[in-house]
Amino acid sequence: MTVKVAVAGATGYAGGELLRLLLTHPDVSIGALTAASSAGTPLGQLQPQLVPLADRVVAETSAETLAGHDVVFLALPHGHSGELAARLGDDVLVVDMGADHRLGEAADWQRWYGSEHSGVWPYGLPELPGARERLRGSRRVAVPGCFPTGGSLALAPAYGAGLAEPDVTIVAVTGTSGAGRSLKPHLLGSEVMGSASAYGVGGAHRHTPEFTQNLSAVAGRPVTVSFTPVLAPMPRGILTTASAPLAAGADAAAVRDAYEKAYADEPFVRLLPEGQWPTTAATVGSNTVLLQVTVDPDAGRLVVVAAIDNLTKGTAGGAVQSMNLALGLPETTGLPMVGVAP
Amino acid sequence: MTVKVAVAGATGYAGGELLRLLLTHPDVSIGALTAASSAGTPLGQLQPQLVPLADRVVAETSAETLAGHDVVFLALPHGHSGELAARLGDDVLVVDMGADHRLGEAADWQRWYGSEHSGVWPYGLPELPGARERLRGSRRVAVPGCFPTGGSLALAPAYGAGLAEPDVTIVAVTGTSGAGRSLKPHLLGSEVMGSASAYGVGGAHRHTPEFTQNLSAVAGRPVTVSFTPVLAPMPRGILTTASAPLAAGADAAAVRDAYEKAYADEPFVRLLPEGQWPTTAATVGSNTVLLQVTVDPDAGRLVVVAAIDNLTKGTAGGAVQSMNLALGLPETTGLPMVGVAP
Amino acid sequence: MTVKVAVAGATGYAGGELLRLLLTHPDVSIGALTAASSAGTPLGQLQPQLVPLADRVVAETSAETLAGHDVVFLALPHGHSGELAARLGDDVLVVDMGADHRLGEAADWQRWYGSEHSGVWPYGLPELPGARERLRGSRRVAVPGCFPTGGSLALAPAYGAGLAEPDVTIVAVTGTSGAGRSLKPHLLGSEVMGSASAYGVGGAHRHTPEFTQNLSAVAGRPVTVSFTPVLAPMPRGILTTASAPLAAGADAAAVRDAYEKAYADEPFVRLLPEGQWPTTAATVGSNTVLLQVTVDPDAGRLVVVAAIDNLTKGTAGGAVQSMNLALGLPETTGLPMVGVAP
Amino acid sequence: MTVKVAVAGATGYAGGELLRLLLTHPDVSIGALTAASSAGTPLGQLQPQLVPLADRVVAETSAETLAGHDVVFLALPHGHSGELAARLGDDVLVVDMGADHRLGEAADWQRWYGSEHSGVWPYGLPELPGARERLRGSRRVAVPGCFPTGGSLALAPAYGAGLAEPDVTIVAVTGTSGAGRSLKPHLLGSEVMGSASAYGVGGAHRHTPEFTQNLSAVAGRPVTVSFTPVLAPMPRGILTTASAPLAAGADAAAVRDAYEKAYADEPFVRLLPEGQWPTTAATVGSNTVLLQVTVDPDAGRLVVVAAIDNLTKGTAGGAVQSMNLALGLPETTGLPMVGVAP
Repeated sequence: MTVKVAVAGATGYAGGELLRLLLTHPDVSIGALTAASSAGTPLGQLQPQLVPLADRVVAETSAETLAGHDVVFLALPHGHSGELAARLGDDVLVVDMGADHRLGEAADWQRWYGSEHSGVWPYGLPELPGARERLRGSRRVAVPGCFPTGGSLALAPAYGAGLAEPDVTIVAVTGTSGAGRSLKPHLLGSEVMGSASAYGVGGAHRHTPEFTQNLSAVAGRPVTVSFTPVLAPMPRGILTTASAPLAAGADAAAVRDAYEKAYADEPFVRLLPEGQWPTTAATVGSNTVLLQVTVDPDAGRLVVVAAIDNLTKGTAGGAVQSMNLALGLPETTGLPMVGVAP
Repeated sequence: MTVKVAVAGATGYAGGELLRLLLTHPDVSIGALTAASSAGTPLGQLQPQLVPLADRVVAETSAETLAGHDVVFLALPHGHSGELAARLGDDVLVVDMGADHRLGEAADWQRWYGSEHSGVWPYGLPELPGARERLRGSRRVAVPGCFPTGGSLALAPAYGAGLAEPDVTIVAVTGTSGAGRSLKPHLLGSEVMGSASAYGVGGAHRHTPEFTQNLSAVAGRPVTVSFTPVLAPMPRGILTTASAPLAAGADAAAVRDAYEKAYADEPFVRLLPEGQWPTTAATVGSNTVLLQVTVDPDAGRLVVVAAIDNLTKGTAGGAVQSMNLALGLPETTGLPMVGVAP
Repeated sequence: MTVKVAVAGATGYAGGELLRLLLTHPDVSIGALTAASSAGTPLGQLQPQLVPLADRVVAETSAETLAGHDVVFLALPHGHSGELAARLGDDVLVVDMGADHRLGEAADWQRWYGSEHSGVWPYGLPELPGARERLRGSRRVAVPGCFPTGGSLALAPAYGAGLAEPDVTIVAVTGTSGAGRSLKPHLLGSEVMGSASAYGVGGAHRHTPEFTQNLSAVAGRPVTVSFTPVLAPMPRGILTTASAPLAAGADAAAVRDAYEKAYADEPFVRLLPEGQWPTTAATVGSNTVLLQVTVDPDAGRLVVVAAIDNLTKGTAGGAVQSMNLALGLPETTGLPMVGVAP
Repeated sequence: MTVKVAVAGATGYAGGELLRLLLTHPDVSIGALTAASSAGTPLGQLQPQLVPLADRVVAETSAETLAGHDVVFLALPHGHSGELAARLGDDVLVVDMGADHRLGEAADWQRWYGSEHSGVWPYGLPELPGARERLRGSRRVAVPGCFPTGGSLALAPAYGAGLAEPDVTIVAVTGTSGAGRSLKPHLLGSEVMGSASAYGVGGAHRHTPEFTQNLSAVAGRPVTVSFTPVLAPMPRGILTTASAPLAAGADAAAVRDAYEKAYADEPFVRLLPEGQWPTTAATVGSNTVLLQVTVDPDAGRLVVVAAIDNLTKGTAGGAVQSMNLALGLPETTGLPMVGVAP
């Protein structure tokens, strides 16, 4: 089987990473590459790493240029994918790498994005309970946010097994590519190198309701999330540190057991041997999640650390993984499991 | 007044930063520079940035080489300063930049360091309640750990005003110089660049009891601290993110008010205007703490972010600040307030 | 003596570094701070490291706002300083940190900048032969480009002593702050971190005629310069590597001797002991040049490596050094000689 | 066909990168993984990015552990591969990633390494004239040094077409992984981040004779090389800038033509469109060389810039490319052409 794939938003970081993966995917042929402002430019000028696509000319993003493909990936600013998807046909697999279809509650969308909700699609984090089943055969996929990918996988086993109180603190250290190729002063190399800074503090980051939604679903009751993203001087990677009070009766052995069981058969999640802690470098360019969990006996808390590549497992790799499921392909097809390190 | 100063541990990162500051301190003349393994080497080979001291030859660290100075700074591995200080005379100001004399409880020392406690000295964080008074005229100073410097200043106003529950989560993102010039694989440039990683997770880091001690003292009751340090690819800087549940009745206005009052007259702590968040880059090479606080209404938590330079305010600058107090000099003498940025 | 100083371009990187230095300069009081597009903003929002100036509001750059000062620093895009200076009065010391008044030949200016030449001012690199004398008492100073600062100091002794053929190759590795706070995609942190790239290759960089002018003047005959700048993932610093064929009869001893003599009394240039090579880190935030020279016997070439901080000695520090000379102050006043490292 | 492959030196950076590539090579099964000092350790502790090999235990490097494989890669310190290879049998393909068998002249080896020469093997840079033919079917391969890979490909077309005088200047900016996982102070993250530095200046670097050998062979006459490596704060990548005086009669058109012809059919070398310059980031993790050439009319020089990943095309990728040729496989098998960027 070869499916013909179009990528809207091919000139951004997420689009570039997606194309890197698609170029070695055995069941894919790459069709239209579109963008908003760079139409007419050879892709090699914007994505010099994509050597085999260097001479491809970027087209304008529109329902017309995206028509005639089996799969369409949308790497667009939020608010743009709902209408576009509606014009692509129900038999086309549309994988939305933006935020539009992640939140189940219209009120959440309204509060955090201030526009009309365009509905919820099957959530592309197959490792969450029930998600894999909803993705199989689906023709619509909402790729998770990069932070919720790391944070949800870090905590789902604890809440699935009832081992933690529903009051989570997540601090996630992220590379700069998560912000995309935005021309903002605080993203200049001179500003980020040698510096760490927090943003969206105090519950202001738009990924907060996605955390809450995912963890509450697993826990079966409302989970409160205090989320602080920290920008660090690295191009890629998210290191999520998450902690929550241990539930009464829970202990280190039960915690370890829950995590081992949850991820024993997951091809992309590796619970490290006890005593070894994840580094984001080991995940660069791979779809792997490296994870470790421990219990702080003095503080009475469970502490988890998870490393992902925000552009791979956190965005484009997760998108391909879901595409594989939707198309009935083996889930790991075309997805690197090995990081580019050092 | 000119005091003659010796530095034991002059070849490490903390010693180098201290000498940088002392070179422009108007009341100091620099005497003996000593080290353990590099005795006999010109300092310029090990600290090429200290141009005016390049031809100074490093001496062996001993009571003899350190004798005859008004002030002796000890930047030594833990366990070495107690005995050395005893041989230096009670009239010599001894400023210990190591861990030996920070903890008040011998049992804490025993648990975390596994050796005999050498006693507690006045704690060199003048901004904590009561500390400044104890430092004035003292002949012994225990310089705080770099993490507790940031974390204690981040939370002291909240606990001093009774605005937070005693269950703190601190995640501190640190540059690599905090680990010193240790030849360990995980500190190699190839490993740290492009990577974030956590260590000492689950309450294993030795700065944990120092946090607990400081915050409990301010709160007047036991405060539990869950502390996770994260190594980030930058040479300097600590970004501390700290959060705790709001106490009953506390609100954003009370929190802001407490922080404004606490730091209104502190020359080295700047509470940023609302909406502006600290970056570590802005503190590089300076003794300044940049700080912001907010309330997360959904999570019911107070969240504080503080940026310091781990080598300056976090170590050598804090040491000079305490020296100034101990010697009766204006507290800000010789201390930069402006960061080297970008 | 206290001189009142204005800074036009206070919100850029060069302006910020200049203010950092001026804040601790004992003979300076800081007056108007102006900029083009950020007028009305408190400086602390744009230069958070300049804590003591955080509440100063940025004014519009104009002859009016800059009037009434003893010294005016212009950190403006090229083409703007000539006209502005003309309106400031001949008794005001105007220090131009831009390119407008560096080149002696109108034809060179025309070729490289494509506009009318606004004339040449005394060149602010006191270490070049004759420069110091021209700067003393001058009321106009042209601060050199950051690359020509490093490259000219690297090679002047060789050409002054007739030890090298007039065919130079310079490759200079620079940090990103040399490009200023420009919002260009290739300056984003995501693009520069983990990457090295060349630009302005083949003689296309506008600093090329400045190299040629400086070295030809020292050599007393035309010197040809092949210049390649390389952007490296660091915020500050220029490492200049320069080489040229040895002149007939020149040898390593003569080369060493020439460099030792040239810089023996220069407070800001340190020829390192043989065998030690400069690092840019050791110069961060300081006005020091670290330099080493050797002879490649197989290639028959002289090779020099020089490290500077592009914002300090390469721009703002050099500007203050020249201001000191122009005002009759000791040349080193207010200038750090010690780098912030690691 | 599946060949069984052993890797001696599996715990270093070159070995890790090699295993990353071999894991997705369709014709390879991975056998013994050996090292000198880490025998007995699970590979996952040393190479956490190699998730599928995490539980493999490292064996001791010896002829015995390496026996019984079709291909043996040697990533060893120099001086160790000659004797080991002799014990592996003539029918085993031995790919030496160290320096031992690169130099043709015993006197060169003796001068630069100070030990006995162990002979020369077919040189694993297929893009050089004649090299591909010598590699086909060979059972011994000498993988080039990382610097000579970039520099030789940068200049071979010019010398092959007689367009440049034989007096080359090469300055190559390298990431830190080229130095391996050596515990040396100048390789610590705290030292390299934010810093650039030169080393082996003046013809002292051991890759110098390899440059000379390669370029002289292409030119058909002795070529002199002035080589300066510069360490930059990035884990991977080499940006080579090379220049030489234009030969009489050569011009920009002839130069462009020579480079286009030389690399028209090379799968791993991409001459960029005129005006676009290579970045190392675009080559990370790929076997691609990105290259641009121009002529500096004022300096009368040809200037070339080439970007590679030192661990991929510069070491492990080049080794696999040569293995493919030696085994009669398609040359590009298992080799990524797309970089991991940003």
